[in-house]
Amino acid sequence: MADHTSELVPFTRGVPPAEVLLVDELAKLTTQVLEESPVAVFQYAPIGRNRGDERLRAELGRHHGVDPDRIFVSNGSLQVLDLLARHLIGRFGRSVLTEAPTYDRARQIFERHGGQVTGVALRGDGADLDQLRDLVARHTPAFFYTIPDFQNPAGVCMSEEKRRALVGLARQYGFLIVEDTPYRRLRYRGAAAPTLAELAPDRVLTISSLSKVLSPGLRVGYAIGDADTMVQLAELAEGTYLTASPLAQAVAARALEDGLVERSIQRAVTFLAPRHDAAVEAAREAFGDGLLSEPGGGYFVSALVRSDLTEAEFLAAAERAGVRLSRGSAFFPDERLPAGSLFLRLPFQALSLEAFRRGARALADVVARRVR
Amino acid sequence: MADHTSELVPFTRGVPPAEVLLVDELAKLTTQVLEESPVAVFQYAPIGRNRGDERLRAELGRHHGVDPDRIFVSNGSLQVLDLLARHLIGRFGRSVLTEAPTYDRARQIFERHGGQVTGVALRGDGADLDQLRDLVARHTPAFFYTIPDFQNPAGVCMSEEKRRALVGLARQYGFLIVEDTPYRRLRYRGAAAPTLAELAPDRVLTISSLSKVLSPGLRVGYAIGDADTMVQLAELAEGTYLTASPLAQAVAARALEDGLVERSIQRAVTFLAPRHDAAVEAAREAFGDGLLSEPGGGYFVSALVRSDLTEAEFLAAAERAGVRLSRGSAFFPDERLPAGSLFLRLPFQALSLEAFRRGARALADVVARRVR
Repeated sequence: MADHTSELVPFTRGVPPAEVLLVDELAKLTTQVLEESPVAVFQYAPIGRNRGDERLRAELGRHHGVDPDRIFVSNGSLQVLDLLARHLIGRFGRSVLTEAPTYDRARQIFERHGGQVTGVALRGDGADLDQLRDLVARHTPAFFYTIPDFQNPAGVCMSEEKRRALVGLARQYGFLIVEDTPYRRLRYRGAAAPTLAELAPDRVLTISSLSKVLSPGLRVGYAIGDADTMVQLAELAEGTYLTASPLAQAVAARALEDGLVERSIQRAVTFLAPRHDAAVEAAREAFGDGLLSEPGGGYFVSALVRSDLTEAEFLAAAERAGVRLSRGSAFFPDERLPAGSLFLRLPFQALSLEAFRRGARALADVVARRVR
Repeated sequence: MADHTSELVPFTRGVPPAEVLLVDELAKLTTQVLEESPVAVFQYAPIGRNRGDERLRAELGRHHGVDPDRIFVSNGSLQVLDLLARHLIGRFGRSVLTEAPTYDRARQIFERHGGQVTGVALRGDGADLDQLRDLVARHTPAFFYTIPDFQNPAGVCMSEEKRRALVGLARQYGFLIVEDTPYRRLRYRGAAAPTLAELAPDRVLTISSLSKVLSPGLRVGYAIGDADTMVQLAELAEGTYLTASPLAQAVAARALEDGLVERSIQRAVTFLAPRHDAAVEAAREAFGDGLLSEPGGGYFVSALVRSDLTEAEFLAAAERAGVRLSRGSAFFPDERLPAGSLFLRLPFQALSLEAFRRGARALADVVARRVR
């Protein structure tokens, strides 16, 4: 058989396309920072700054409408999640609830820190709250982890109704919510629901990142929560890597001040909206009701499809048909797919309209056994 | 009592003085990197680069005379140590041996990862190898952690004789050595002994950093070891923070290529040698035989002193006498000082000759109970 590897449609990584990175402006701001604070950016951060650069925390505070004391900055949001999991798991029990599917790296972090992860089925408007209620009524978890906006991997947004019901459950049963919001500002259609933190600041720890709205390479992520937790994350961080990059944080602060983050979001929204619309249309055509949602933003659409192939067989057939997929089961706790189903994550942000359409059609052919 | 806080001699932090940072050259290289690779430094690192920037690993390989496959780069050497401890502890048992005293943050990392840390007394020429032999003969540790050059906190260098004997023990009893070498290139007097890795590359994992020889703010540290271990550290890193900063790594690569690291080392050596010499003289005068060693490099001299004060009483008396000290017991496993002794770490790199002398004399007065 011919090797088609070089032509495979890569439905794999959630990396922004180069077109949405305003690298010239980022480089210019970096040069300005180097001119203004040459010593500070190449030296250790001052003692007591382990929650992050003061100016960046002030800007993030303004951006999110919260006191800077409620912000902790780290080397990207995955590192924030690692520190937060280390802080929460054990202290509040070992049971962690997530959506199913959920972000695979998050699940792995929870397991690494001793968490016992249970999944709550994800519907087109968010987690199944009846399932969640049953679980929390039996046993209070350390926390419920959710990506309420344009979820990775499913592309689902939690409806406002479910958000209100979820924080109600959190109050009733006394558990914490960790909401991860990297894609929230990348909205192409429809109106945003309130964040969970806006609905219940006392019950919610928020994680976010500048990776999808400014630059992944800067490696700037942050947590928003109660001031005590932020101090404790900062102590864990200091004992792990001393301080996050002073230069990256100074550039990020400047990019918020200067409006570059907002311009960058506008650029991404303008560039990605047509890809989103075309992806939804192509996926609807390919998978019909298997399509989990029409996201309205972010990077992903996804489908649950019926197949009598095993996942390994399906992935191999997909490659033969010209498509490389991430393993869908990796997004589920215990790597257990819903019975008789396969899960397909389809990132559209980095693909041309044509490539996405070709990939979706090829997958539909595999589902229908029109190819082997 | 008057508040003398603002005039205290700070014998506390191992931060390089601003005078040794070649910030203008660093800024220039950073600007060049931004001009040449604007997209790469603001994007996610390419897949498969989780061991670090290729060019930086090639340069570090040249610098250390090892294959780049044996190098893993991370956000500073403490982060390297955290990943390495996570990798080694458990896999090879939970017992960790260190020098006593040792770097406090290293000890805390080992404990956090479930290590049971036992100290081996540090003499003027390195760890007491009779004690070490007794310990390893009874029980093979996961590893022995050592800072063989200008140790933090004691300033001690391990003699060549002891290095050879140590790797002999490691071979005989089948344990790993983790050598941490951030200060090695900052030598002001005398000749360097071989590294432990040079003596036994099969038994030694090396950690080092550009913080003391180029810039702490870059947050670039690295491990050198067998290629398999490097791959496993890279996988742990990817699951924790995805990738280390592309910009910082690109600047570090350029600084090695361009000779800036060597110029920076020369600058540090020229600037710090007189401080070292004056510190050794002042500490010898103040503490006599209590001085642990005349280091010949690095940032620290130290003393073990007899006192019938408790450590808390001593630190308080020192503050009244105008000196702020780190708590010496923090550098010992179980925070247990040798009976009847107190340990004083005296970083000299950031103090004027006059301030160091004043501080050492004030501490001598506290030891002699000439002040209260």
